[in-house]
Amino acid sequence: MKLAVLGCGAVGRSVAELAADYGHDVAALVDSEGAVVDESGVDVDAALATKAETGVVGDADPADALAADYDALVEATPTTLGDAEPGFSHARTALERDRHVVLANKGPVAERFGDLTALERDSEGTVRFEATVGGAIPAVSTVEDVGPSKVTRARGVLNGTSNFILTRMAAEGLDYEHVLAEAQDLGVAEADPTFDVDGTDVALKCVILANVLSHGAADDPAEAREFSLSDAEVEGIRNVPGSALELAAESGRTVRLIGEASRDGVRVGPRLVPDNGTLSVTGTQNLVQIETSHAGRLNLSGRGAGGPETASAVLADVGRLE
Amino acid sequence: MKLAVLGCGAVGRSVAELAADYGHDVAALVDSEGAVVDESGVDVDAALATKAETGVVGDADPADALAADYDALVEATPTTLGDAEPGFSHARTALERDRHVVLANKGPVAERFGDLTALERDSEGTVRFEATVGGAIPAVSTVEDVGPSKVTRARGVLNGTSNFILTRMAAEGLDYEHVLAEAQDLGVAEADPTFDVDGTDVALKCVILANVLSHGAADDPAEAREFSLSDAEVEGIRNVPGSALELAAESGRTVRLIGEASRDGVRVGPRLVPDNGTLSVTGTQNLVQIETSHAGRLNLSGRGAGGPETASAVLADVGRLE
Repeated sequence: MKLAVLGCGAVGRSVAELAADYGHDVAALVDSEGAVVDESGVDVDAALATKAETGVVGDADPADALAADYDALVEATPTTLGDAEPGFSHARTALERDRHVVLANKGPVAERFGDLTALERDSEGTVRFEATVGGAIPAVSTVEDVGPSKVTRARGVLNGTSNFILTRMAAEGLDYEHVLAEAQDLGVAEADPTFDVDGTDVALKCVILANVLSHGAADDPAEAREFSLSDAEVEGIRNVPGSALELAAESGRTVRLIGEASRDGVRVGPRLVPDNGTLSVTGTQNLVQIETSHAGRLNLSGRGAGGPETASAVLADVGRLE
Repeated sequence: MKLAVLGCGAVGRSVAELAADYGHDVAALVDSEGAVVDESGVDVDAALATKAETGVVGDADPADALAADYDALVEATPTTLGDAEPGFSHARTALERDRHVVLANKGPVAERFGDLTALERDSEGTVRFEATVGGAIPAVSTVEDVGPSKVTRARGVLNGTSNFILTRMAAEGLDYEHVLAEAQDLGVAEADPTFDVDGTDVALKCVILANVLSHGAADDPAEAREFSLSDAEVEGIRNVPGSALELAAESGRTVRLIGEASRDGVRVGPRLVPDNGTLSVTGTQNLVQIETSHAGRLNLSGRGAGGPETASAVLADVGRLE
């Protein structure tokens, strides 16, 4: 397939670099200020070298990329909330041209799921978004395969930054501020860690799962209950004191930031979990636990973030389009 | 879809019972001695009641079932080795009539993968076999989604009976013979437990995974290296002494029957694993660990066996046909 890749952060860059390995061509590559378009296949190494030297992938107009001849648009620009722009409009442009859209950008899927699926219904193109939940973990496709109506609930540890912090607090008996600083030094937490430590990132992923459960089980998908971030009850990890972890350890438990999604809603918050149990994944690992109607619980764990990891989810989605 | 269900053991029975819940009709239901055929939809409850009273689902000829008008044949007759008959011929009959085949029967997939895929290439029908590996765990479809050429190895705990025995031996300090008797009383082990405790069941599942890895990564699938049970190096758990588990525990480890599959071959045997690590699932739980090229390790765990559990894998496969 020919891919138009929007976004040159860790994920977009990795998708562009790995595309050939999966048998695809990059017809266009767009960053925040420019673009390079070549329908016979962009020279990705050259484009990324140009970006390294000049700050921009090329001097084409990003609008040329959206107008180019591609099969699937990969939306890997930064997640935005509310109107989810400009990501939502990128997806709409592609779908109105009957092209496929593969999202790593959570915004349109979490905040405008109804609008997005309406566009998909009117398009020859298909929308996929495995990369928006759990990085390399095949959470969305597993729910699809089991059948959303056969899944009663999905929950898990879905943010590596906050999980790393809680793991270190418990292991070292240190407090939140101290471990946050360590995480930032290691590049595991951002300079502004709000999105991760306040539970927003987890909430967006759970909202996406709730939308899949709701939409996939509805008799009429157009009438399915739609969730967005504002529907989620969210508490982050800033107020978890080191003493809570010590107390938990005394009874063989620890604390994890757990997100839960069902057709009834989304809740995110710190929870006590058994210390060596399934939910107590450590470090930056993610885990998704799917409760099914006929087959009990399925647990999926792996790397929840990272350029190549998330790109592999994008490229698995592209494979599912063919 | 209309399903012809061959086999009335735990799996076949559950597929027949759950089919309506998934929106499918059972066009035919066949046990070892008889059949019931109704292209407008068999009354499954009545057929199973008949079987309970008379020992047979109905007085039709099983050949009528194979000749009926169905969309997908569900092959859930007992796994047989070598020529994998009669399961292989059932699959061949369906494929030669351009129907789909969904297998829970490991025989044709492990012992005659080349013949099976050759028939599939010449047919309008598709072959699927999620239910042959890991019960409810989506092992095969996850390897397919990641892309077989992007999976370097799959390994795991794939037999609940042997895992239950090892878990109990470690927990109670009992020896193999004692725990085997307990497992048989509980119905977790068969009267003849050979298949499970000698590693044959695990080996078949790993051979299937090796075939998926080989076939899915080959430039020409018709030339792909084919694996069968005779290619596997297999050691079971009969010779694991209780003392080995005690010794392992002293250094924070335990013993699990681990199966490994790659494009280079299949090995099954008892291995030392960290006591609270991913591979030390307990009881009858199964775990599949998939090593990927770009996304690190994925771990999938859940119920590896059981009527409804395995049926949900069969019905997920039927859903993937549509």
